[in-house]
Amino acid sequence: MSIQIPRGTQDILPGTVEKWQLIEETAKEVCRKYLYEEIRTPIFEHTELFLRGVGDTTDIVQKEMYTFEDRGERSLTLRPEGTASVVRSFTENKMYGNANQPVKLYYIGPMFRYERPQKGRYRQFVQFGVEALGSMDPAIDAEVISLAMQIYKQLGLKKLKLVINSLGDNSSRAAHRTALINHFQPSIHEFCSDCQNRLEKNPLRILDCKKDRDHELMKTAPSILDYLNEESSLYFEKVKQYLSLMNIDFIVDPTLVRGLDYYNHTAFEIMSEAEGFGAITTLCGGGRYNGLVQEMGGPETPGIGFAFSVERLISALEAEGIEITQEQQIDCYVIALGEKAKDYSVTLLQSLRQAGFSAERDYLNRKMKAQFKAAERLNAKHVIILGEDELAAGKVAVKNLQSGDQVELPLENFINEYTTLSN
Amino acid sequence: MSIQIPRGTQDILPGTVEKWQLIEETAKEVCRKYLYEEIRTPIFEHTELFLRGVGDTTDIVQKEMYTFEDRGERSLTLRPEGTASVVRSFTENKMYGNANQPVKLYYIGPMFRYERPQKGRYRQFVQFGVEALGSMDPAIDAEVISLAMQIYKQLGLKKLKLVINSLGDNSSRAAHRTALINHFQPSIHEFCSDCQNRLEKNPLRILDCKKDRDHELMKTAPSILDYLNEESSLYFEKVKQYLSLMNIDFIVDPTLVRGLDYYNHTAFEIMSEAEGFGAITTLCGGGRYNGLVQEMGGPETPGIGFAFSVERLISALEAEGIEITQEQQIDCYVIALGEKAKDYSVTLLQSLRQAGFSAERDYLNRKMKAQFKAAERLNAKHVIILGEDELAAGKVAVKNLQSGDQVELPLENFINEYTTLSN
Repeated sequence: MSIQIPRGTQDILPGTVEKWQLIEETAKEVCRKYLYEEIRTPIFEHTELFLRGVGDTTDIVQKEMYTFEDRGERSLTLRPEGTASVVRSFTENKMYGNANQPVKLYYIGPMFRYERPQKGRYRQFVQFGVEALGSMDPAIDAEVISLAMQIYKQLGLKKLKLVINSLGDNSSRAAHRTALINHFQPSIHEFCSDCQNRLEKNPLRILDCKKDRDHELMKTAPSILDYLNEESSLYFEKVKQYLSLMNIDFIVDPTLVRGLDYYNHTAFEIMSEAEGFGAITTLCGGGRYNGLVQEMGGPETPGIGFAFSVERLISALEAEGIEITQEQQIDCYVIALGEKAKDYSVTLLQSLRQAGFSAERDYLNRKMKAQFKAAERLNAKHVIILGEDELAAGKVAVKNLQSGDQVELPLENFINEYTTLSN
Repeated sequence: MSIQIPRGTQDILPGTVEKWQLIEETAKEVCRKYLYEEIRTPIFEHTELFLRGVGDTTDIVQKEMYTFEDRGERSLTLRPEGTASVVRSFTENKMYGNANQPVKLYYIGPMFRYERPQKGRYRQFVQFGVEALGSMDPAIDAEVISLAMQIYKQLGLKKLKLVINSLGDNSSRAAHRTALINHFQPSIHEFCSDCQNRLEKNPLRILDCKKDRDHELMKTAPSILDYLNEESSLYFEKVKQYLSLMNIDFIVDPTLVRGLDYYNHTAFEIMSEAEGFGAITTLCGGGRYNGLVQEMGGPETPGIGFAFSVERLISALEAEGIEITQEQQIDCYVIALGEKAKDYSVTLLQSLRQAGFSAERDYLNRKMKAQFKAAERLNAKHVIILGEDELAAGKVAVKNLQSGDQVELPLENFINEYTTLSN
């Protein structure tokens, strides 16, 4: 009996893997221009990290984590997101002492959430994210947003909506919190049990509730923007000014919140407005988290970042009808006729590949016609034909599969001759 | 209190991550020339897969797997190696029916083994490997070996030793097995308990035993090469001939074995002979496994592949004193003096990055001198200085940090002017 892939996961095979490759290369290339450097943290972390860094009241932590004990009886968890690990690493490796500040990092790799599998939603998915740690300059908020937008635009997405908000500093948040409690308290019995729990713990998250989102009190809830103190307000103004200077369109949405206590100031999401993309349109979410490094045991350090799923980005590209991968082409296919020619083809193939050409031959002992077909299927530019007679005369035939032109090249100095021909 | 990284794992930080990046890029580039395409399988699989594919008598399966139950009470295991997953995917996705045959795949990514952490040995490590499925042509055996060697040579390794052997086909293996039992049986009580167990189950693995390797009977054990039947012998001769045609040096070592039943014919290892590399010198191991696809529930399909750890490769490069990463350099650092100039720098930075330059500015509100220092630390080619007076006059100063030359460029059409200057 054959063994199957675990439920909710997928194999990414040749023919589609090129999408992941191109997105990852694009993200890395944009990071290079913006001076964000790669960090790689382990696939699993101590469970405690996510309880603290993601928040023990979140769905992720309560329902969706892959948690297990290793042979040393440590509770480990497959990482459900990237920020907690990066901040753990930043703190543990004392990167707050690095010469170059702020510390600008990106990560890309698999994340794990035990969710009900649905079309386009997997239990293992690839997340790309950046974190900029150590600066409280509104220009870095704008830079982080701009970086995400540049990746999307470079890949060809056009139907994007950027939504931003400010949660203010701690005192602004506290004032807003009181206003929210006063607003919801009298009618909290009309809300779901989750929201009833949230009222005292974290009333901001009521605004995020999917069950109660049509309740009338949601629309009239006090806006954080009315509770920003002067400093927070100025900060937000500057972020918006910088986005405008960068020609990045945005919409301010005061209901865009981040539930966890250590989030503050800038929050943003990038949505796809492509038709047929689905009910949940968010591609990318990010924001400022000035309290997180301290929460993780490091010194007070401002931080801002975002993350997006590569799989959702691929869906958005498909929804806009954008084909990012190109037809594959190889340089040459070597056809050998007869035993001697076959032996010689091994040497020739080796030389071609060492010279940088993508080159292939037959490994199934196929007849000449079938080898030609294989060359066509691989979309080879040239077929190099090794016949016994030609070999004896020190020559090979090279056929251009597009034009049909065929020339003879000498075996001596063949790589140079072929390089000239193929340029 | 801060939370630490799980024991036996490592963070790969900017400054060293470039080594992993370069090795991965090199491996992918060589695969492109050899027409091996990427496959990505999940980080975890059903535990059963590795019991069957790696073998339930191996150390990996008995002692080193990260096995756990998910919330649906499935027994899952973090993959300890890549071949079982690739063969599972090949079978499940019916790739034996693909138009292009053989199916040539590579993978690269984290693997997990619960081993005692040591210098250079981690519980999570990156493995690169290839698998060629569907061909029983000795040229593909040679190709697979050549691919591994080309990656190593392209990275600069010189002190390499390639060791090959043949385990023959099933009937050759059976004859050798009988000879081994006859050889060891009379004195098996002098061997370790593992070897005593192996005698009937899998006598070939006795030759692999680290505890008993100095026992006299090891040296006089019957060689598989004396038991190859004619077909197996011819196959091995052809592999050796092809390696010679490719100018790849090798040594035949009849004690190089693979314990599992589905391994047959070609087996190989690539070792580092660099001084100080350590007691275990194997960098890369591979071989032919014509029985594995069937073992996994697929149709009879020949296969061959290899795998190597990126971390061990990095150690080998270090042992040979090879520095693969280059000094980082960025294109330009934008220094802004005064509020207006700062605002303008946001626009300028955006234009520079969109034009493809790697560009940075200050995010810590530093003075001009400190900004110059930051530019030098980042090894910037140019510093672009935005002063209020110059901006008012529609000009900026561009200083080449290497030569010290400074020129003024007009703001109008700046990107074009700067592109010309920097070429």
